[in-house]
Amino acid sequence: MRLTSETSSDGVRQQLFTLGELPGVLWTPEGAAGTRPLIFMGHGGGEHKLAPGMVARARRFVVERGFAAVAVDVRGHGERPRDAEFDRLATKEQALVSAGKETAPLLADFQTLIAQPTVTEWQAVLDAVQQFEHVGAGPVGYWGLSLGCGLGVPFVAAEPRVRAAVLGLFGALASAEDAARITVPVEFLIQWDDDRVPRHESLALFNAFTSPEKTLHANPGNHAEIPHYELDSTLSFLTRHLT
Amino acid sequence: MRLTSETSSDGVRQQLFTLGELPGVLWTPEGAAGTRPLIFMGHGGGEHKLAPGMVARARRFVVERGFAAVAVDVRGHGERPRDAEFDRLATKEQALVSAGKETAPLLADFQTLIAQPTVTEWQAVLDAVQQFEHVGAGPVGYWGLSLGCGLGVPFVAAEPRVRAAVLGLFGALASAEDAARITVPVEFLIQWDDDRVPRHESLALFNAFTSPEKTLHANPGNHAEIPHYELDSTLSFLTRHLT
Repeated sequence: MRLTSETSSDGVRQQLFTLGELPGVLWTPEGAAGTRPLIFMGHGGGEHKLAPGMVARARRFVVERGFAAVAVDVRGHGERPRDAEFDRLATKEQALVSAGKETAPLLADFQTLIAQPTVTEWQAVLDAVQQFEHVGAGPVGYWGLSLGCGLGVPFVAAEPRVRAAVLGLFGALASAEDAARITVPVEFLIQWDDDRVPRHESLALFNAFTSPEKTLHANPGNHAEIPHYELDSTLSFLTRHLT
Repeated sequence: MRLTSETSSDGVRQQLFTLGELPGVLWTPEGAAGTRPLIFMGHGGGEHKLAPGMVARARRFVVERGFAAVAVDVRGHGERPRDAEFDRLATKEQALVSAGKETAPLLADFQTLIAQPTVTEWQAVLDAVQQFEHVGAGPVGYWGLSLGCGLGVPFVAAEPRVRAAVLGLFGALASAEDAARITVPVEFLIQWDDDRVPRHESLALFNAFTSPEKTLHANPGNHAEIPHYELDSTLSFLTRHLT
C-alpha cells in the first residue's frame, strides 16, 4: 500500500492510497492512535470513493464515533480506467430504466462481471488497512447501498471480519445465494417507491439473509431519496454492534 | 379529573387519576414545571396502563427526554369492570389464534365495538392532562402497538394535537379508512413472522397512511418479540418530531 496524499480538516485525517493499481481513501480521527472499529464503505453505481455522500458519511463515522472508514473505487469508476464492458452494461441499464423495463436480469450480469474480483480486492484492502497502527485489527462494519449492496452482499458473505452490515436498494436476483450465507446483523434499507428495484425483489433479498438479527427500514420515495434520519440510524446500528 | 395517588422514584413522578369512571396514570419528571411534550400511550390487548412495558417506556420518555407520558385503561382492561361483550370477543380471538385461523374479521368487530368510544375518552383525557401546569398544551406524540395501534389509528386520525405516532403490530382490515386520514409522521413496526397479524395486512396498513413521512421497521420474530433497540428508535423518532 502506497500513501499518495494526506490532508486534515475539522478533526478528520484523509489519506489517499493505492494498493497495486487500486485507488482508495482512508479516513481516521486527526491524531488518532491505536485500534478502532473500521467501516468499509461501498459506493453506488456511477459514484466513486470521494462522492459527496461518501465523504459526509465517513466524516460522521470519524467525528461522532471515533471510527475509521475506508473506500476504494469500483471497477470502471472514479480514478480507475474506463471499462468498455462495464460501460456497455451501464448504458444498457440506463436505457432499460428510462423505458420503465425490468433491470434485474442485467444487474445479475453486472454482479457476475465484477462481484468476485471486487471481493478479492476489498479483502486485500482490509488486510492492508488493518496494518496501520491508527486502524488496527478491530471490529469491521460494512456500509453500502445500491451497487454498494450488490457488491457488499458477496463481500460480507465471504469476509468473517465483518460483524455488521448496512445494505439496501438492491434486489435478490443476483444476490440470494450469497445473502443466505450472511449471519451477522443487517440493517436493510428499502425505498418503498424505488424506480430501479422492484419492491418484491428488495423484500426477497431481506428475506434471504440468514442473520438472526436483521432489521428492515422502508421509506416512501425513489431510489435516491433515502431520508437523512436513516444515516443517524445506521450510525447507531453500527455503533451498537462494533463497540 | 381527580388525583387518587402520587409516588416518585428515581426522578419520575407517577400520578394516578380518574376522569369520571376512567382510570389513568400520568408520568412526569420529578420537580418538573412548565409545558413539555406529552406522549399518549395505548396499551396492548390483555394489558393495562401499568403493565411493565408501559411503565418502562414511560420512564424512558420522562428520564431521558423530560417528556410527560399518559395512559388509561381500555374498556374491559386493568381497573375497569369486566365486560361480557369484550371478553366474548377476546376468547373467540384466542381460539382462532390457537387454531391458526385468520383473526382479522374478528379484530374488525373489536374495532367497531370500542374504537369510537375510546377516541372520545382519550380526547377528554388529553384535554384534562394538558390543564396541568407541569404538562401544558405542548406537542403530543402517540405510542401504541397491537390493540394500542388498532385504537391509536382512529385516535391519531381524529386528534389534530398529535404530531407524530409510533404504531404497528396491527393490520389494515379495520383501520385503512382512518389510516388514510393520518398525515403526521408515522414510525410503523412490523414483526416479520407475526403469528397474529398476517404480513400482507400489516404492509397494507403501512401503505394506507397518507403521511409524507412514514417509516417502516420490520424485524424477524413473533407478535410479542419486538427487539429492544426499536424502543431506542421510537424515542429518537418522537424526540425529532416533538422538540
